[in-house]
Formats: sequence, structure tokens, C-alpha cells
Amino acid sequence: MPFHFSTEVIVRFAETDAAGVAHHSAYLVWFEAARVAYLAEHAGGYQALRDKGIESPVVEISVRYFSPARFDDKLRVYARVFDIRGARFRCQYVVERDGERLAEGSSLHALVDARTFRPTRMPAWLREAIREAESNNSSIDESQLSRKGLMR
Amino acid sequence: MPFHFSTEVIVRFAETDAAGVAHHSAYLVWFEAARVAYLAEHAGGYQALRDKGIESPVVEISVRYFSPARFDDKLRVYARVFDIRGARFRCQYVVERDGERLAEGSSLHALVDARTFRPTRMPAWLREAIREAESNNSSIDESQLSRKGLMR
Amino acid sequence: MPFHFSTEVIVRFAETDAAGVAHHSAYLVWFEAARVAYLAEHAGGYQALRDKGIESPVVEISVRYFSPARFDDKLRVYARVFDIRGARFRCQYVVERDGERLAEGSSLHALVDARTFRPTRMPAWLREAIREAESNNSSIDESQLSRKGLMR
Amino acid sequence: MPFHFSTEVIVRFAETDAAGVAHHSAYLVWFEAARVAYLAEHAGGYQALRDKGIESPVVEISVRYFSPARFDDKLRVYARVFDIRGARFRCQYVVERDGERLAEGSSLHALVDARTFRPTRMPAWLREAIREAESNNSSIDESQLSRKGLMR
Repeated sequence: MPFHFSTEVIVRFAETDAAGVAHHSAYLVWFEAARVAYLAEHAGGYQALRDKGIESPVVEISVRYFSPARFDDKLRVYARVFDIRGARFRCQYVVERDGERLAEGSSLHALVDARTFRPTRMPAWLREAIREAESNNSSIDESQLSRKGLMR
Repeated sequence: MPFHFSTEVIVRFAETDAAGVAHHSAYLVWFEAARVAYLAEHAGGYQALRDKGIESPVVEISVRYFSPARFDDKLRVYARVFDIRGARFRCQYVVERDGERLAEGSSLHALVDARTFRPTRMPAWLREAIREAESNNSSIDESQLSRKGLMR
Repeated sequence: MPFHFSTEVIVRFAETDAAGVAHHSAYLVWFEAARVAYLAEHAGGYQALRDKGIESPVVEISVRYFSPARFDDKLRVYARVFDIRGARFRCQYVVERDGERLAEGSSLHALVDARTFRPTRMPAWLREAIREAESNNSSIDESQLSRKGLMR
Repeated sequence: MPFHFSTEVIVRFAETDAAGVAHHSAYLVWFEAARVAYLAEHAGGYQALRDKGIESPVVEISVRYFSPARFDDKLRVYARVFDIRGARFRCQYVVERDGERLAEGSSLHALVDARTFRPTRMPAWLREAIREAESNNSSIDESQLSRKGLMR
């Protein structure tokens, strides 16, 4: 299951903590930035969803941390959307620095009406855009990713 | 110009940075927490304002840092509202640790309609509640505050 | 497996996002605040660990979100430490608002030398303090907690 | 006094608040990111300073907010270093979106020994690198900047 999308993040000083490394909560923010960039590239953007009155709150999230990121590190954050079913979808993430896998994670999202917070099905155009995105040929060969962690 | 209100903040690990101290942006969050607690105690709360469709965005903010706060420090954040005029008001803040002044700051706020972001006058009840709060007798004598910094 | 410890958190405005609810990354910061408060009460504090040159980085974290927390909500964050083995331990968390379970999570921590980041065993005094904390009589009956989510 | 440096920031969802705009504390983080990027381009980097055991804590900061930034906005953050004297220097910042000035700010920094937090003079190489940076020809004509705010 290869990644077709990645974006770059540089570790901000504000994201570090007194242990001298990036705080573990920063990864959730990077995952989100990558998810937003993914949707911007492939599906008219997260804002397009929000403009249609749809929010996609995080229902579950999990992260495994292998090696700390440090201030000013240039990170590559891989993201993919998969397992779309009804009013839910999953994303997966890998954070790398120079080919070393620092962390990986996954998130489960609901699609809800922004006002009522009631579940709503993924719009067909978004489902199609994601299917397109995940099947294109410019895939990132995961064998290029480090093998330190196994994605669940 | 004495303070009549203060609240406690404990420095979170997530608020520290790789220099081993609280990140300078955390003080804005603490100022805001103190401002919210002040309004909760004296004026039915910030939420009461928001429920009436009024936001009070920060128009200007300034901070002077004297000595770093560190992880797990128990801080006292003094706050007062003053200089209410039309659709604007000012707040002042002092952050102390065991009587030592670590930082001080001030913010200028607009009162705006939450939807249009147009200026709106401070409601009479809020103006009255603040006047009341700032004139009560349980004032904190500022002479108890350290003299390291001069409030502007 | 009951909780013996909880602490209060009030949702800060800075912790909300444009969906009008607390951002999902804020829960990790609250978990950490509860973990730190737990260790402060039961084990001489997180700082005691750090003073001995030990960091306890997060190795894995997972959160399940049931219902959004909102600005100014008064939350109760339950925390416990368990499953101490060698250089690792686990924590579990529940976030409640007025008895409603909003989220739950767990974290796995390594104990490492702060300079070398090499694994180090949990000091006997800390292991003992935690054992003591988790066996005391003032336990919080988990039957008082909502049943919306099952802890893993 | 023209700017010779700018960098791009995209407003993250985690940086927004329940008023639907970027939280005012986020601007300090963007200023810092721009300052770090400036030093990376012109002076071997902030990390070069830190590697020499020098921190440059913020002593004063002020921001004026003209118009809110929103989720996913592409911002340009201008930064310059000036007024270097002894163990202190000042930075100035402008945040723009499509040529509209959203905010401006300035910060005063001390240079201190990272361990003792004692003042230390700016290294000659850094002073020289900044002088160079601020006098180069690829200046950004400030007349291209909006006129909404006057830099102090």
C-alpha cells in the first residue's frame, strides 16, 4: 500500500520541548497539515469540504514514535486516505528525516454536518478524487521508506 | 492602579521549548486564560459575550519578559480590564512566580459582531460589571508585586 | 481497574479550532498535564525524574474521541499508570465533562537517560510510589464513569 | 527601511480558534519561523548560534493585528534584523496575504549563554552576516507592501 503524496515540514522552535526534541503533540499537527495538503492537491481542498458545511473530525488517532525530531529538522510527512466507508475514512502517515522513519500514525475521521455534527456520507466527488489520487502512477515506492516500523 | 484579580497557571511541559524554558508565545495563552477567568468571575463570562454574538479580538498585544518561567512552575497571572471606550478596551497582565515578576503585558481589544466583524459597543451590563470589579475593596496591593518592571 | 487520580482542566480559547471545538491535539497536552500532576502527587513529581537525568518520552499514544469539548468547558481528566516493566510503563486517561466521557486514551512511555536517550530502568522509589498510588483506598469507582467507551 | 527577506506560511487548522480565525498567538510562532529562516539563509542558521551555546530569548514582543488570517490562507511573512547593539538586537515583521497587511510586529532579543543565561555579545560573524543581508541588492521594495499599518 504505497504513498502517493508527501509534504515537507520544518520543525519549529515553538514545537520543541524542554527535553530538546519536538513535542509528541506536534506530530498530530503535522499529520493534519499533510492531510490538508493532500486534500488540497487531490480533492479541491479541505476548505471545499468546509464550504459545503462538512467537517471531518478526528474520531481516533494513534501514533508510534521511533526516534525524536529536533529543532529545524526538515521532515517529510507522507499521507494517504484509505478505507472510505459511508461517513468515515481513515488516513495513514509516516514522518521521515533523510529516509529515517521517525514516527507513523493513523487517524479515523467522521464526516459530519458542521452545524448539527450529524454523520453525513462522503460526497461522491471527494470519494472519486481520492480513488483517483490513490491509484495514480507517480506512487512513492514504500520500499524506499525505512523498515523500522510496520504500519498496522 | 491595583489588580483585583489573579489566577494560577502551572507551566505545562508542552509549553516549554528546547531552551528549557516556557516558550514566549505561551504567555499570550496565559494572559487569555486570565482574561477569560476575570470575565467569568466578574461579568458572566467570555462565553456570555460570545453567546450575544460578540467577539473581542486582540488588536494589539505587547509583552516584556524579565525572567524565564520553567516547566511545572506555579505562576500567578494578574489581570485587569481598563480604558473602556466605545468598541475598545485594554487589559493589563503581570506574571509572577513566588512574588518575582517574570513578565508583564498589555492587550488592546476590539468588540466586534461575530459574523460581520464590524465594531460594536461594549454592552452596558459588561461595562458596569467591569467598573464594579475594578472598584471593589479586595484589591491586590501592587506594592506587593515586584518592582522589576514598570507597567506602561 | 479503577482510577485513583484525576485533575481538572478548563478548555482554553487557544485550544479551540475553527470547527468551534477543542482541537484534537489538545487532549495530548491534557493527558500530559494529568500525568505530570499524578506524578507530582504520588511520586515526587516528574521534575524529580528529570532532576535525576531521566526523561520519559512517549513511544506510543492513542486517543478515541466520543464527543467534542468546547471553549470554557470544565473537564475532569483521569489518569493512571500501569504495566510497569523494565524501562517502559503505560498510562491510561479518560476525559469527562459532567460525567460524560468525551475521550479516552493511552500512552506508552520509555524511560531514557536524558543525555544519551538510552533506555534506563524505572527507579525503585518511583515504581514503589506508583504501586502505592494505584493500590490506595480512595479509588474512584469506575462505575461512576460513563460507559460510552470501553478502555482497551 | 526595506525588507530583504520573506518566507511563506500556510495557516494550519490547529492554529485557528473558535472565532474562525488564526489565534493571535500563532503570529509569534510565524515571526519565529521567519526569524529562523532568515538566519538560516543569511547567517548559518539559528542552530549555528545554539551550537555555539548561545540562545537569543525574546525580551520584548509586540504585535498589531489589522485583519484576521484564516484557515489555509497562504501568508507571506517579512522579517529583518536591525538595531544590533552589544548583547541585543531587534527584529521586525510584516504578515501579508495577497498584498494585504494583516499584522506587523517587532521583537527585542537578548543574546545569552545557553547554560548561565548571562548576556553575551553577538559574535562578529553573525553581526557581519546580518549587515551583509540587510544591505544586499535584492531588497523587497516596501512600497509594494500595503500601507494599512505604519511600522514603528
